[in-house]
Amino acid sequence: MKKKMYFIIFGANGDLTKRKLLPALYNIKNKTQNSPEIIATGRRAYTTKDYINETKEPVSSFLKQDYDKEKTEEFLNAIEYQRIEFNDKETFISLKDFLSKQNNIEDIDIIYYLATAPEFFETVSQNLREAGLTESKNSVRRAVFEKPFGRSLENASKLNSSLSSVFSEKNIYRIDHYLGKEMLQNILFIRFANCIFEPLWSKNHIESIEIISEETQGIGTRGGYYEESGALKDMIQNHLMQMLSLIAMEPPEKINAEHIKAEKLKVFKSMKLYDKNPEDCIIRGQYTAGEINGKKVPAYRDEEKVSKESMTETYVSLKLRLDNDRWQGVPVYMHHGKRMPRTGSEIRINFKSCSCEGYFEKMPQPNILIIKVQPDGGIYFRINAKEAGTENSIIPISLDYCHACQNIGNIPEAYEVLIKDSLEGEKMLFTGWEELKATWQFTDTISEAFKTDKIKMNFYKAGTKPE
Amino acid sequence: MKKKMYFIIFGANGDLTKRKLLPALYNIKNKTQNSPEIIATGRRAYTTKDYINETKEPVSSFLKQDYDKEKTEEFLNAIEYQRIEFNDKETFISLKDFLSKQNNIEDIDIIYYLATAPEFFETVSQNLREAGLTESKNSVRRAVFEKPFGRSLENASKLNSSLSSVFSEKNIYRIDHYLGKEMLQNILFIRFANCIFEPLWSKNHIESIEIISEETQGIGTRGGYYEESGALKDMIQNHLMQMLSLIAMEPPEKINAEHIKAEKLKVFKSMKLYDKNPEDCIIRGQYTAGEINGKKVPAYRDEEKVSKESMTETYVSLKLRLDNDRWQGVPVYMHHGKRMPRTGSEIRINFKSCSCEGYFEKMPQPNILIIKVQPDGGIYFRINAKEAGTENSIIPISLDYCHACQNIGNIPEAYEVLIKDSLEGEKMLFTGWEELKATWQFTDTISEAFKTDKIKMNFYKAGTKPE
Repeated sequence: MKKKMYFIIFGANGDLTKRKLLPALYNIKNKTQNSPEIIATGRRAYTTKDYINETKEPVSSFLKQDYDKEKTEEFLNAIEYQRIEFNDKETFISLKDFLSKQNNIEDIDIIYYLATAPEFFETVSQNLREAGLTESKNSVRRAVFEKPFGRSLENASKLNSSLSSVFSEKNIYRIDHYLGKEMLQNILFIRFANCIFEPLWSKNHIESIEIISEETQGIGTRGGYYEESGALKDMIQNHLMQMLSLIAMEPPEKINAEHIKAEKLKVFKSMKLYDKNPEDCIIRGQYTAGEINGKKVPAYRDEEKVSKESMTETYVSLKLRLDNDRWQGVPVYMHHGKRMPRTGSEIRINFKSCSCEGYFEKMPQPNILIIKVQPDGGIYFRINAKEAGTENSIIPISLDYCHACQNIGNIPEAYEVLIKDSLEGEKMLFTGWEELKATWQFTDTISEAFKTDKIKMNFYKAGTKPE
Repeated sequence: MKKKMYFIIFGANGDLTKRKLLPALYNIKNKTQNSPEIIATGRRAYTTKDYINETKEPVSSFLKQDYDKEKTEEFLNAIEYQRIEFNDKETFISLKDFLSKQNNIEDIDIIYYLATAPEFFETVSQNLREAGLTESKNSVRRAVFEKPFGRSLENASKLNSSLSSVFSEKNIYRIDHYLGKEMLQNILFIRFANCIFEPLWSKNHIESIEIISEETQGIGTRGGYYEESGALKDMIQNHLMQMLSLIAMEPPEKINAEHIKAEKLKVFKSMKLYDKNPEDCIIRGQYTAGEINGKKVPAYRDEEKVSKESMTETYVSLKLRLDNDRWQGVPVYMHHGKRMPRTGSEIRINFKSCSCEGYFEKMPQPNILIIKVQPDGGIYFRINAKEAGTENSIIPISLDYCHACQNIGNIPEAYEVLIKDSLEGEKMLFTGWEELKATWQFTDTISEAFKTDKIKMNFYKAGTKPE
């Protein structure tokens, strides 16, 4: 018989829990045999009934096409609410009591999900430890931490040391929800289940790689967080670097957590700025007031909880290189910005130009493989063909595949994939400490460059791109 | 000022003229500045008016979406009809008189189009010569010959010698209308305007090549011709080998008639049966009575003008190899049959399997690039991706491009392309004598094998494939 498992959420009154975690757990419950008991915890003095009532509306609406009235009620009614005050050790002991009342606590598996601001990671972990909730000889005690994990190498290292005194690396699951996205998982399939790509996958045939993530959204109500983070730490250090690592890594010995993570780590360690002078390969920007879809939007400096003199970047563009044999000399561009003209994440593999001088009237455009991550996952291969009805004219055509169209409704959201993996102890899609260390190390060099005067701040109108 | 040009059709009462040549000439007239004066010739004692009346209905219907009442009348009314009896030299002299009456015959360009049975190629050519219509110091005298060009190397050589005494090789245009098809022309673009393909285009990455042309049609009223020809000489010796040559040739120095034809010739010369024993790499078949699309159809032996004991093949499947460095060891399959379950011509490039043992639950299927020639031209690239909503399951997906959809209505029919080229003296899409010699040489080895008992005749039910 499978053990009873508890999934305990810290920050259960937050947006993430209502928009992502509970809908994901609902789907896991409906799709699998073993779904965990859920305990929602928060500072508010709710009863379980209060919490369920409070949660019904948002969860139902975020379930979208998965919503079913009866199933949703059944799912929510099984949730228990426990008040936890992060700084109040007593509330952790109450949590333990609650668990002990119903079980022999040594016999249950527990997953802690910290959907809290990162400054509480340590306190919560330490208090769990002190309450005797983090160790068990027979059973699982795992902790899932939301990003961001640290703000610099130094800061992340301190945080990690502290958490490591509570949970072993094996039991720490650091979320980068991009890794749960179908199209990111698909990269491994595209690269390694198609033998036409491997021979082309190097400096010999690839001119450049672009990792792009653009959003029309601004920072919303996250001003407090964003002022500390900025575009670099919010997106580049994690999501964009993770995408790059999957694209650029060497074929692993096997497709499993151990080997994939080892190969990704090598990529992170090989990252360098492309040129000697940081100012030649870093652009930063901050949005000013402008228009998005015909609607006026405020400047970043006028957003809630943002300083009027803020020098936080909302746009970063980097030119990197990977200092290894496969990619020597191939520029890697990373672009991320808020309040861009469009929303979309994609990876563009730009192949080299043909050596077909004189073959055609005009030189053909280079081939491009685009892996579209969102909003609609898919693969677009731009090749050249004869323009129909002309004698010798080349036209770029697109060989398309819409992944999102394949099986609409059945594609699990990233959080569903990742929570399921956390329940099953599958770590391939989580970020290991060594990976984080390497990405922070490189990110720090860019943060340092920001502090000098050399990287000018480009103020761009919301809805446009920086020049 | 451009010279006046005459386009003189022999066999003007035949199907080909009405279905293909006149519609092509109509389109050329409407799309270009310079279109030729058309003289239709035939055995029948028609007046020009008779001919035009007789032709109006079929031409109009074969024009399909290009049909325009006024333009069609204008086009047809400009045609002149001349009676020609192939064996009657006087009628050729009358043709000359007709031309001389309106022109200084030295000042006009003439294209002869022999849409006749091949047994008349020599007679017509010789009679044109004797009438003084094949030589000119200042002007063009070209002859376009419909296929088939010969029935064996010996027979084709004899025919060619005879024609060469009238027209120089430079002025002989041998039609293989497949070469005028958009997707065949597109092969050069696909191969050479996309630098992702050239590195993959060899024995190192390609497992096999298939050239496929299947038809649900039987032989219709062409029994007399087909009994002599069979599937091998009707399709394989010309269309299928031409397709192969474009796929397999080395990159030419330039994309022009001289260099393309030189490279294609090398391919033809390198063709060998794959195995030592012809019976291991040749299959032949003949259709028996069966059903096509729910309609009963007769056996080949019961078709008009076909012998009841006929041993003519209506299906051929070959396994070849190309004896050169690029393709050493790669099997090339050619399949052609009448009364098959479906109609379609396509080229399949089957890539090698991945060396990704142990990466996925199941070994992925190999990548395939399909160039669909007809009925709807297009490109289909089969690659593997993650099956949406599964954890580790591979699904083959198709990156599609429909060429026919690109610019519907504007894609010229093969005959329009080829006639236009013949008017302009562009020979790239015509078959040179050296190419023919090489294809006949190889075809003869298969014909010889047919004569032995070793290659059994597979009788297959119409609407099915031979076992």
